[in-house]
Amino acid sequence: MTLPAFSIPAAVLQAASPLARVRGAEGGVELTWADGRQGRFSFLWLRDNCGCPECKHPQTLERIFDILSVPEDLEAAAEIDAEGLLALRWSHDGHLGEGHVSRYPGAWLLQHREETAEGAPEQAAGAPPPPRLWGRGLAAVPAFDYETVMGSESGLAGWLTALAETGLTVLTGAGTAAGTVARAAERVAYVRETNFGAVFDVISKPDPNSNAYTAIALKCHSDLPNWLTPPGVQFFHCLANEARGGDSIYVDGYAACETLRDEAPEAFELLSREPVTFRFRDDRDELAVRAPVVTLDAEGRPAILRFNFAIMDVAPGGLDRQKAFYAAYRKLAAIVRRPELELRLRLRPGDIAVVDNHRVLHGRDAFDPASGERRLQGCYVDREALFSRLAVLQRSAAQPATL
Amino acid sequence: MTLPAFSIPAAVLQAASPLARVRGAEGGVELTWADGRQGRFSFLWLRDNCGCPECKHPQTLERIFDILSVPEDLEAAAEIDAEGLLALRWSHDGHLGEGHVSRYPGAWLLQHREETAEGAPEQAAGAPPPPRLWGRGLAAVPAFDYETVMGSESGLAGWLTALAETGLTVLTGAGTAAGTVARAAERVAYVRETNFGAVFDVISKPDPNSNAYTAIALKCHSDLPNWLTPPGVQFFHCLANEARGGDSIYVDGYAACETLRDEAPEAFELLSREPVTFRFRDDRDELAVRAPVVTLDAEGRPAILRFNFAIMDVAPGGLDRQKAFYAAYRKLAAIVRRPELELRLRLRPGDIAVVDNHRVLHGRDAFDPASGERRLQGCYVDREALFSRLAVLQRSAAQPATL
Repeated sequence: MTLPAFSIPAAVLQAASPLARVRGAEGGVELTWADGRQGRFSFLWLRDNCGCPECKHPQTLERIFDILSVPEDLEAAAEIDAEGLLALRWSHDGHLGEGHVSRYPGAWLLQHREETAEGAPEQAAGAPPPPRLWGRGLAAVPAFDYETVMGSESGLAGWLTALAETGLTVLTGAGTAAGTVARAAERVAYVRETNFGAVFDVISKPDPNSNAYTAIALKCHSDLPNWLTPPGVQFFHCLANEARGGDSIYVDGYAACETLRDEAPEAFELLSREPVTFRFRDDRDELAVRAPVVTLDAEGRPAILRFNFAIMDVAPGGLDRQKAFYAAYRKLAAIVRRPELELRLRLRPGDIAVVDNHRVLHGRDAFDPASGERRLQGCYVDREALFSRLAVLQRSAAQPATL
Repeated sequence: MTLPAFSIPAAVLQAASPLARVRGAEGGVELTWADGRQGRFSFLWLRDNCGCPECKHPQTLERIFDILSVPEDLEAAAEIDAEGLLALRWSHDGHLGEGHVSRYPGAWLLQHREETAEGAPEQAAGAPPPPRLWGRGLAAVPAFDYETVMGSESGLAGWLTALAETGLTVLTGAGTAAGTVARAAERVAYVRETNFGAVFDVISKPDPNSNAYTAIALKCHSDLPNWLTPPGVQFFHCLANEARGGDSIYVDGYAACETLRDEAPEAFELLSREPVTFRFRDDRDELAVRAPVVTLDAEGRPAILRFNFAIMDVAPGGLDRQKAFYAAYRKLAAIVRRPELELRLRLRPGDIAVVDNHRVLHGRDAFDPASGERRLQGCYVDREALFSRLAVLQRSAAQPATL
C-alpha cells in the first residue's frame, strides 16, 4: 500500500495556497491561508483525523484511534510548522499519552473547510464529476470506441467521465458475440447479480417474468426500483435489431425532476417524501421495498429515481394521500412523456448502451418479433464502483502527495 | 406463473371480514366491512391497481395500464358484486374504452386501507416480521442446526424468521470445509460480491487492506458503510479459532439508537441527518459515499446504521457543525460500548454467525496470531433477498388465494 494518509487531488494540491496563520477558536482553531481564505475546525474533528501511523494503520490506512479515548474538552497547542503543516500538540491523549503531535497539510484542510463567503470548499478527493443535465436537446449520445475503452486507461477515463456527467453513453464496435457485455462491465467493476441473473437476454420470451421479456412498448422507466439501491449502471449490448419497431428512448430523469420542481414544487416535494411500495414477484422471488419516487441526496438534489409503471406496487392508503400522490405522480409522468425531453436512438448490432439507472430513464417502442430478431444482452454494475474506478484513474494521473 | 394478481397473506385472508357497503367519497369510495372497519380509496389509486389481465400482464403480473390514459377526474359506478368483490365500472377509460370493470377482493383492500381509529391496516403481503430489539440481555443467540436449515423448508423458514427478528443467529455443525459459507448464503440468495471478493478469509495477513485482516481488536462496527446500501446480511464461518483472544462481540444497533433517542433526542436527530463521508481506499479501489450515521425508514425508525470507526472518513467542515457532530457521535459510541448491551460469544469451528449488517454491530477482541490459528470465512447477501426468500416461503405455506 503506497497511498498517502491524506488524499489530495492534484488540482487541489497545485492550486493550494500555503497556510499563513493559526489562532484559537472556541473548541478548535481558525486557519488563514496566504490567499486570504479561512476555515475553522474543531479539536475533536482534527484529533479524529490524525494521519500518523499510530492513529491510522500504516498499511490499511484505516483509523485505529478511538474517539472515546480523549475527553470532550480536548485541546491542543497549535502552530504552522517549518514544513508549512498545521501541527497540533494535544493536551491529553488516552491513546498515546500527553504530548502526541498531529500534522495536517494545508491543501487537505482546504478541501474540508466549511462553505464561507469566499466560496465553497475544494472538491474532495475521489468526488465524481457533477452531472450535466440535458433536459432538452442532447445533440448526440456521447459515443466511444469499444476497443479504445477496453485497451487504454485514458480511453476508459474519458468514457466514464462522460457517463458520470451525462448518464448515457454508447460504446460502438463491440461486435455481436454473446457475453461481451460482461467484459465491458468488468472494465468498470464486477457484475452485480440480481434475480434476473448476472447477464440476461432481453428478448421476447414465451413465459416472461418481466414486461422487458415481452414485445410490448415500455414507457420510460428505471430498472429494479424494488431494491434498496437499484443497480447504478446498466449495460445493454445490441446483438441483433432486425425487428420492426423496438427503438430505444432515453430521458434525463434528473432534468425531469428539476422541471417538476420548477413547475409544481409541492408535487416534487411530495414525490421525494411519500413512500411507495415497489415489488417484483415471480415463482422464486418476492422482492419489495418502500421508498419515495425520488430519493434526494444530502444537498436536496435528486439522487435515485424510482420510476417504473410496471412494478410500482401500491401507493399508501387513505383517500387524501392517494389523491395527492396521484396528482403529483401524474405530473412527473407527463413531463417524462414530453417528446422534447426524449432522446430516441436505434441501437445497431455491436452497440452497447450504458445508462446511469439512478438518473436516466429508458424505454422502447413495441416491436414485432415476427418481423426479425431483436436481442439485447444486459447486466448491471454498482454506481459506487463506477465512481471508484474513476477516482483511482484520477489518482494515477495525479502527482504523488507529499504526506 | 401461477401467482394471483392480488397477493393476500393467508393470515389476512382467514381473518378478513366480508365487504358490507360501498358509498361515494370525494374522488373515490368509502368501504365498510361487516366487522365495522372502514377505509377510503381514491379512484385513480383503484384504477391503477386493477388486476385484470388487460391491465396487469397475465404472465409477468406487471402493470400494463397507463396512468396517463385516464383523466384526473376519473369516476366509477361502485357496487359489492355477487362474489363479494368491490366492482367498479369506469366512467371513461382511454386504455380500454368506456365501461371497463375492475374488481378487488375485500381482504386485499383491508391490507391497503389507511390507519384509522380502529387500528392499523393489515400487514401487507411479503412484509418481513418486525425486529425485536434486545438492548440488554439477549439470553442466548438463536442457534439452528446447519443440516436442518439446508435440508428443509421449515428449517430454513425458522432460521430466517429468527434472523429477521433478532438480527443475529448462529448455524451450528457446519463443519470446517472452506467454501461452506457460500453454500449457506446461497440457501438465502446469490452471494453479493464486493471489493473484498465473493468469499473472503478473515485472517491476519501480511499486507492487509482492511483492519479486519490484522490481529488488532475491532470495536463494534457495521461493515461496508461506504456503499450506497451496505450488505444486509453477513456470514462468518469459523474454520479455526485456536488463537488466544479473538472473541466475538455483538450489539443490537437499533436498540443502541433507541437508547440514544431516549437519552439525547437531539443527538439522535443529528446523526440521522448530518451526512458523513465513509471511504475505503486501497490500490484498486476508492469507494466512498456520503450518508448519515443512522438512515431512517419512512416511519422514522432506524433502518441502516453506518457505524465504523475505521473507515468513517471525515465529518463535514465548519467548527460548529463539527462540534455538534462529535458530541452526538460520541454519545452513540459510548452507548454501543456499554458492557450490558454487548453480547459476547466465542465462535467454535463449524459455527456460522449470520448477522443483519444494517442493524447489529459486530466486533472482536484482539488475538495473538502466534498462539494458534484463527480463520473465518465471510460473505454477504442482500437484505431484500433475505426478505424475498422469507416471503416466498410464507407464500408456499399459505392457502391459494381466490383471485
